[in-house]
Amino acid sequence: MNRKAFQHRQIAPKALSDIEKPELDTKVFGIDLKTPVMMAPAAAQGLSHSKGETDTAKGIAAVGGLMAQSTYSSTSIADTAAAAPDAPQFFQLYMSKDWDFNEYLLDEAKKANVKAIILTVDGYRESDIINNFAFPLPMANLASYSDGDGKGKGIAEIYASAAQKIGPDDVRRIKEYSGLPVIVKGVQTPEDAIRAITAGAEGIYVSNHGGRQLNGGPASFDVLEVVAKAVNGRVPIIFDSGIRRGSDVFKALASGADLVAFARPVLYGLALGGAEGVQSVFEHIDNELEIIMQLAGAKTIADVKKTNLLNIKY
Amino acid sequence: MNRKAFQHRQIAPKALSDIEKPELDTKVFGIDLKTPVMMAPAAAQGLSHSKGETDTAKGIAAVGGLMAQSTYSSTSIADTAAAAPDAPQFFQLYMSKDWDFNEYLLDEAKKANVKAIILTVDGYRESDIINNFAFPLPMANLASYSDGDGKGKGIAEIYASAAQKIGPDDVRRIKEYSGLPVIVKGVQTPEDAIRAITAGAEGIYVSNHGGRQLNGGPASFDVLEVVAKAVNGRVPIIFDSGIRRGSDVFKALASGADLVAFARPVLYGLALGGAEGVQSVFEHIDNELEIIMQLAGAKTIADVKKTNLLNIKY
Amino acid sequence: MNRKAFQHRQIAPKALSDIEKPELDTKVFGIDLKTPVMMAPAAAQGLSHSKGETDTAKGIAAVGGLMAQSTYSSTSIADTAAAAPDAPQFFQLYMSKDWDFNEYLLDEAKKANVKAIILTVDGYRESDIINNFAFPLPMANLASYSDGDGKGKGIAEIYASAAQKIGPDDVRRIKEYSGLPVIVKGVQTPEDAIRAITAGAEGIYVSNHGGRQLNGGPASFDVLEVVAKAVNGRVPIIFDSGIRRGSDVFKALASGADLVAFARPVLYGLALGGAEGVQSVFEHIDNELEIIMQLAGAKTIADVKKTNLLNIKY
Amino acid sequence: MNRKAFQHRQIAPKALSDIEKPELDTKVFGIDLKTPVMMAPAAAQGLSHSKGETDTAKGIAAVGGLMAQSTYSSTSIADTAAAAPDAPQFFQLYMSKDWDFNEYLLDEAKKANVKAIILTVDGYRESDIINNFAFPLPMANLASYSDGDGKGKGIAEIYASAAQKIGPDDVRRIKEYSGLPVIVKGVQTPEDAIRAITAGAEGIYVSNHGGRQLNGGPASFDVLEVVAKAVNGRVPIIFDSGIRRGSDVFKALASGADLVAFARPVLYGLALGGAEGVQSVFEHIDNELEIIMQLAGAKTIADVKKTNLLNIKY
Repeated sequence: MNRKAFQHRQIAPKALSDIEKPELDTKVFGIDLKTPVMMAPAAAQGLSHSKGETDTAKGIAAVGGLMAQSTYSSTSIADTAAAAPDAPQFFQLYMSKDWDFNEYLLDEAKKANVKAIILTVDGYRESDIINNFAFPLPMANLASYSDGDGKGKGIAEIYASAAQKIGPDDVRRIKEYSGLPVIVKGVQTPEDAIRAITAGAEGIYVSNHGGRQLNGGPASFDVLEVVAKAVNGRVPIIFDSGIRRGSDVFKALASGADLVAFARPVLYGLALGGAEGVQSVFEHIDNELEIIMQLAGAKTIADVKKTNLLNIKY
Repeated sequence: MNRKAFQHRQIAPKALSDIEKPELDTKVFGIDLKTPVMMAPAAAQGLSHSKGETDTAKGIAAVGGLMAQSTYSSTSIADTAAAAPDAPQFFQLYMSKDWDFNEYLLDEAKKANVKAIILTVDGYRESDIINNFAFPLPMANLASYSDGDGKGKGIAEIYASAAQKIGPDDVRRIKEYSGLPVIVKGVQTPEDAIRAITAGAEGIYVSNHGGRQLNGGPASFDVLEVVAKAVNGRVPIIFDSGIRRGSDVFKALASGADLVAFARPVLYGLALGGAEGVQSVFEHIDNELEIIMQLAGAKTIADVKKTNLLNIKY
Repeated sequence: MNRKAFQHRQIAPKALSDIEKPELDTKVFGIDLKTPVMMAPAAAQGLSHSKGETDTAKGIAAVGGLMAQSTYSSTSIADTAAAAPDAPQFFQLYMSKDWDFNEYLLDEAKKANVKAIILTVDGYRESDIINNFAFPLPMANLASYSDGDGKGKGIAEIYASAAQKIGPDDVRRIKEYSGLPVIVKGVQTPEDAIRAITAGAEGIYVSNHGGRQLNGGPASFDVLEVVAKAVNGRVPIIFDSGIRRGSDVFKALASGADLVAFARPVLYGLALGGAEGVQSVFEHIDNELEIIMQLAGAKTIADVKKTNLLNIKY
Repeated sequence: MNRKAFQHRQIAPKALSDIEKPELDTKVFGIDLKTPVMMAPAAAQGLSHSKGETDTAKGIAAVGGLMAQSTYSSTSIADTAAAAPDAPQFFQLYMSKDWDFNEYLLDEAKKANVKAIILTVDGYRESDIINNFAFPLPMANLASYSDGDGKGKGIAEIYASAAQKIGPDDVRRIKEYSGLPVIVKGVQTPEDAIRAITAGAEGIYVSNHGGRQLNGGPASFDVLEVVAKAVNGRVPIIFDSGIRRGSDVFKALASGADLVAFARPVLYGLALGGAEGVQSVFEHIDNELEIIMQLAGAKTIADVKKTNLLNIKY
């Protein structure tokens, strides 16, 4: 459904637009980026490649893009950050019921110089339950925490104790503790966006977790425009869920997103070629985006954001 | 078509809702229930399991839900009631042209302490006719009636003599004779709901009999909202037809239903595990409903009923 | 597409309607009929059964329905009429460029006591041309004409000389010559209906020839309602194209048709069982219509015509 | 998607229209044509037949239609023109970054007496890149240019150097240099049409290059009507993309096109039968168009253009 939603809007070509080489540079959250396409905070990338998130970070750094680490990464916050020391990274927090663990993660993230915290407010995986999925690999951030003091909790226990009850106070608490901007991930309605901003969020992340989350929910792209209208430029918007092509990126930007994240194709690239594979996937989608921009007469990302999409019903 | 209709509405997730454990308790028709999901009055459950309706009753009682017996049950009203003596049950009446038989059934229902009569006002099965279907098992309520006095009518004859002509007077007559609330089942339009309430019905059951009824009719879910608006809270609404997932239950409640019934998945559970199988199916759909409620920010069934669904056209 | 169009409207069931046995009787063009379902003027029924149209006429007469003969019948006007002497029949005219042949046909029709002339104003068959179809059997009305005077034209020649240019004057000329009511067949727009009535037509036949006609045209059922509004009861409306079930008949009547014609299922019945097969097909669709009428709370065909269909978009 | 779009409009049949033989003659760009269906400027027709564009030109000349040559033709401008010396031809220019080459092509086109220049303003082929497609045959116009002066550029180099940056100034420059009307091809929006006309274009060519161009763009037929409204008769409109049947041609003309181009079916005809195959394909689509015109009550192409299509949603 996430994929199909992109067909609800169409890009009008623009002839005689005198554009030769579009520019993908953008500046979001005060960070200069060479592409608006970023890495979504996918968990356990060791499942794709033995080097895991460290190679992903290197690949993205090579294209000047933004990396988002996951709480449940295969490599530690510090190692992933060290793999690409000059490149910007975000850290995504699955909040634990164990606040000490949250503090440990935020401390590590600050030490690693991440630029923002992405607070994920959803977290259910029906297909993982049906498939009885269990992570075959250790998750570095959890292992280092519980091994660290010897009397900590076991990995499985911590994972099971991810907080189900998350509210505006948690946004404030994380922001205060870390001193970093908090981006709320999993927003699908204007009401949620406003509640998050009121609670102090400095970014909105529109996502339905690749559609794996709420059975019976809407496609993420279908709600982006209305959420963006409610946000009305007050904070930047990140979008993911279903992004595969440069045309999807174009449509998401034109519908209100400032950054567009994806993960699945990147993980394929990681599996096939490590850091080079990741770099190749980002270069390919950037190239697709450039071609679309040229055909649509948009010279810059700012032009893309001003584009009116067509809305032809099929 | 009943299944597809649920895609006409979508559930918006609600982030930062501070909800940990939703509550499924509800009170309908003055009865305290632990779940809004009930058993639809499916006939001949002996086809699924040798213990038939008695095991279904036990399974539902274990989750604190509501059982609806069918006129054409494999086990008798008394036996099904006795299988779960403390659990609430309804009795569904297929009205016979033979009023003595109707009185016999209502007498048995009263003796069994059922809480309400569901009067089914439709009753055609095209596929049963095409398949030349014949019940391979006796139907307990019919057998006990005709065997009882030795001069009664044969089973086939009674079944064939189900009343085709049903009107408001029948609602009144059943209500007066039984002294029990009457719920009219098979309603699909506001006009029918109002006619039923005017005739004294104390509940409306929106159903198209699993879509097997009127060739060319609408999907049941597609008419629920408009019927509920006409009923306007005067009497409770039961909904069935096409329910398979917790998200369907959520959408039906949010569209105006007070109770949501299903049968097919329950019969699969009954066939595979008797009373435990039934219990397992109800626990599963309750669990799905809880997850949806948490993601949608609804703490109680009353919250679910106040939820506005999205209406994105695909 | 003709079939799919019926899904654009839905029949609302009506509970508590106190209806036992609906009545299919109707009176159209001053003729008393036992069913609103009639035989469409299908050509060359000898392809289905050796007795051809004579057996069709007998089968329809047995259910009290109306038969429409085709110019290109396998049996002659006189023989088909004589097969069911007391039953009403219409004659459908494919106008020839050879006016003598038209007069011959109208003379034969009058002698056979037909009640009305159906003037078909379309006549292209792409698939017949692609398949290089040739009638393997003689067409009785053509054979008797050309054999009659020994100097007549060959069958192929006459068939090829069907008039392509048909206008309002032809309606008037046929009406005057025959003294019979003329029904214009092939109408799909309000403009055409009004033009036909202005030219003296006493009936409108909404049809797209089973969809075989105009590549890129609308489904016939989709235009019925708007044509019926333009006709506004001034003359009766016959509808065909895509009728297979009793629910289709109900929807066509509720959308403005006075008679509903079909042919394909009848020809299957004719092939399998001659007159009895035809009778069986009509009895089956009448039975389906009765069940729908009962469930929809319509006691008479007049009630059906007053029914408001639902219009739920899928 | 281009094909499916034609189902968004339907042709209403018109009965009693008194039309025998429709007329396909039309006059566009001051040129008398026997059919509104023209040959789109398809490249490299030597891939279909050894005689390439020269046979296509002969086949179209035989039906009195219009031929559009492509820059990347298998036969030279002069040879293709000489194959049908009395028939009208257009020349389609893929603008090169090498202006000398553009001048060479325009010089050749003028010498060959073409009536207009079609300036194609798009030019990306994703599937050709995926398939690693390389032209197995020389392209005559490029070969003659580079061979001509012995110091020209190689074919691959020229092809790669097709201008990506095209603007209004290019329209003016080509018009001034050639003295011929310029038609801008690849227009999909009213804004582009107006920009092109303002730049001096004397024709608008609505096309999405058979859908191979902009990933995520609209179907070409879906935008034709709104572009035609913006053009408002100031210059003629050519339409292509997805044309296969006479009904498609009818719908495009009724939606605002003055000429309707296609290529794929013509190339099949060319492959199977050379000039005769081409002629046969044009005769077939003309015949389909005539039948549609007769059924829809349109005697002339002007009548077709005045026809209101139906707009029934499915």
